[in-house]
Parts: sequence; structure tokens; C-alpha cells
Amino acid sequence: MARVRLEPGTVWLVGAGPGDPGLLTLHAARALAEADVVLHDALVSPEILALAPHARLEPVGKRAGGRRTPQLRINERMIRLAREGNRVVRLKGGDPLVFGRGGEEALALAAAGIRFRIIPGISAGIGGTAAAGIPITHRGLAHSVAFVTGHDASGELPDLDWPALARGADVLVLYMALRRIGAIAAHLRAAGRNAAEPVAFITEATTPRQRVAITMLADAERTAAAIPSHAPTLIVIGPVVALRPLLGAWQETAPPSEGERHAA
Amino acid sequence: MARVRLEPGTVWLVGAGPGDPGLLTLHAARALAEADVVLHDALVSPEILALAPHARLEPVGKRAGGRRTPQLRINERMIRLAREGNRVVRLKGGDPLVFGRGGEEALALAAAGIRFRIIPGISAGIGGTAAAGIPITHRGLAHSVAFVTGHDASGELPDLDWPALARGADVLVLYMALRRIGAIAAHLRAAGRNAAEPVAFITEATTPRQRVAITMLADAERTAAAIPSHAPTLIVIGPVVALRPLLGAWQETAPPSEGERHAA
Repeated sequence: MARVRLEPGTVWLVGAGPGDPGLLTLHAARALAEADVVLHDALVSPEILALAPHARLEPVGKRAGGRRTPQLRINERMIRLAREGNRVVRLKGGDPLVFGRGGEEALALAAAGIRFRIIPGISAGIGGTAAAGIPITHRGLAHSVAFVTGHDASGELPDLDWPALARGADVLVLYMALRRIGAIAAHLRAAGRNAAEPVAFITEATTPRQRVAITMLADAERTAAAIPSHAPTLIVIGPVVALRPLLGAWQETAPPSEGERHAA
Repeated sequence: MARVRLEPGTVWLVGAGPGDPGLLTLHAARALAEADVVLHDALVSPEILALAPHARLEPVGKRAGGRRTPQLRINERMIRLAREGNRVVRLKGGDPLVFGRGGEEALALAAAGIRFRIIPGISAGIGGTAAAGIPITHRGLAHSVAFVTGHDASGELPDLDWPALARGADVLVLYMALRRIGAIAAHLRAAGRNAAEPVAFITEATTPRQRVAITMLADAERTAAAIPSHAPTLIVIGPVVALRPLLGAWQETAPPSEGERHAA
């Protein structure tokens, strides 16, 4: 195995995966074990942070202490800690470069002359959908899957060609779109997607609190309204969602969620 | 950490990631350590298979012994081994459900009444792009990224609405599309994508043999012609490719490839 180590004075931007600590990569686990400081998203679980027993833990990012840490301050903190000679892990939910702003953090490090490394993680769009029993590119049903964010930098619906996405992507996986799903569903239906097309809402994927709600495009906004806005939720739209009863039936989820048990 | 174990008589469909053994998940590494039999894609490296020291290794899938193992035979073999009471790992490159036919294998197991579990992996579209220094959803440049396969079940260009994909997806990540890139590029240009838009070819991503070739849409077919068809190659199209010189400059690749070293 490649013996790359987290050296003093460097920063690793590390993906923590969707929630289950078993979905961290070997590189990620080793970096946490070696780190002096871990700057982590507030949503990263205590079970994952326990993999960094020797590190000072600093929560940053969304909802840290009830407030959002500005991106500029996160960048400055990473650079300062690295210049002080620390082995720094910047631990981010999912994958650092899939709607994670890891690219911005990497550019800031590069501009400051800090050596860094990106350790990819299991993005919710891949790990969360698998845990829900949804094969996002099932042969015969999907030749293309689009990962799309539900809001832009100012919190608005992104300026995308939604009708084109509706026609070009067999499957849509929406991140951070819970409060925008009404507008998105309207765009998709206007572009010809079927009102009865299945939609899955996967909340707190791969954690003991995982919940999956299945609905159809016409009812998506109503289903979304019943999900708390603070709960990290992924939305999947496409015919592959219909395979969930088959793949979910025998699948051992890890750990099995109460909601799943009750539904079974 | 969730103590899920690979039990006798069950099958885990496990993603091996893009190539670097350090990109396996903790679940994947533990499953390999516990397995009695590992049915692995022929492309999975000896370094990764070394993580399964107690298992019998059976190569299946593409180019195993010069021949392709039919999917039906793989399914039958998994079922038989599970019924014999083995702890079976079906190890697949990348992620099992992203253009990996893991959904079909899961359905076959479900139909046979075999308990299974899907362990997601780092898909090349995520891990390979990170290793090449390309942030596929960089804020301000990309609100959507589409993962697309370059051929359908019969080996032809998939029946997709390419003009719609060209307009709806800010970034396109193409799997197994090396020999179809000419037709795809023509579709994209006809739909209005710029002839000068940057394109990256990432070959054997995250391995010591990683190579990255940067070109533009107008020259993509010519660049592809210089890459051996047997080399697993991912293609990325979009403005985010232009960030590579910034992100790649300081990034420590793992392990650093000769091509990268020479280019630096």
C-alpha cells in the first residue's frame, strides 16, 4: 500500500463519507490517527471524530456552535495551523469536492504555499443511495446520472437549464434541495418527466437515524414538507428508485435504522 | 463503529475504489480480511487483493484469463458459494452501483434468497478526478455534474438526449467512453458547447501509472487516439478542468505518477 503520511506543516482535505464510520477510507482513518488538529464540519459524528484520539478537534462550518464559520476564517485557520507545523486534517462530510467547497479551500492553500492533499470520500449521492437500496445507474434504466445542488452561493435555486437536465439525465440526485423541491419538480414536469415518476428522500443516510421516504414527482413537495429542514436529506428522482423494494428487501443496512425495521 | 460482519452464507458486493488501496473503505478492508472467497474483477490490483490473505481468489469479469466471464455465470457462482456457507466478497472496481452492474448482481442474490450487503466504493468519477486536481463541482463553475457511460449493453453509444445533457450538465464525467469521444464531442459541440472547452483524460487514476492528458473539445478525438484502449480512462469535460494547474501544483498525488513528475 502507498505509504503516504500526513507530514507536519501540511493539510489534508479529507472526506468523511455520508455518516457510517465504516465508510471512511483507509487513508482518511490513518490521517485522523496521525493528525495534530482536526478542523471538522459540525455535522461529522462523534463516532468518526473518535478515530482522531490524539488530535485537537475544532468544529467549523455550518451550525458550529449555532453559527456558520465564514469560509475565509476556515481558510485562514488551516493556513495558520499548517504554518505552525501542525499535521492538519480538514474533515468534511461526504466528498470534499462534491458540493463541499473543498476546491475553494485547496485554492486558498495553494495560494498560501501550503502543501495539501485531497482524500476523496464516499459522497452521499453514492453511499446514501446504496444504503437505501437504489442502484443509481442500473443497466437498462439509466445511462446517465446528474448530481445537482439545490441552491447556489446566495441560497437561491441554481441558474441551471432545468428542462435540459430533465431530458438529459436519466436519474437526478439532488443535494441540499429539500426546500427547493417544489420548484425543481415543477421544472421537471414542465419538461416532460412523468408526474408518477418515483422519488426517494433519504435522510441522515447510513446513520442509525436513516429514514427513506418514497413518493412520486407530483407529491414531492408535500413529502418534503414533512421532513425537518435541519436533517441532511438527499433526493433521488428516476425509475431506478422503483428497484428499492427488490434491493432493499434482503439488504443488510448498516446499522439497520429503526424506520427501516418498522417499515419491514 | 457499527460492528457489521461478513457472515457465512452471505455476499457483500464491495467497491474497491479507483486503484489506490488506501481508498478502500474500512468496511471493505474488514470484509476482505474476513472473506473465505473473493470473486474479483480482473482489473483489481494485487496490492488490493493482498488485503484478503485468507481468501481463495477467483478472477471474474472483464478479461479474466483473456475472456469475459458471462454475468449469468458470475451470479450463479456467487449464489453457489453462499449456499455452501462461504463468506463471499464480490469485489468490483470503483463503486458497485455506478456503471458496475452491482444492481443486477444484487437482484440475482435477492431472487435466490441470499442475504447481501452493498459496500459503496470511491467511484473513479470522484476519486480519479480528485487525484487529477479537478474539483468537479467547484462553486461558481458547476452546479451540476453528470456521470455518463460511453456505451450501452450492446456496446453502442447510449440512446441519450446528448443535446439536452450538453446544456443541462455543467460538467460531464464519461466512463468507458474512450472510443466514443469523437461522436460525443460532436454532439456536445452541435448543442453549443465551446470547441475550446477543456477536456481531461485520466488514465489508471490513483495508481502509480496514472496519466493525465489535457486537451480541448475540438481535439478530444485526436487525444483519445493516442491512449491505449485497454487502459481504464475517465474523461472530464467542463470549465472546472481549467483549475487543474492550480490544484495540481501543490497537491501530493498518491503515489505520485511518473508522468506527473516528469511534467512538473
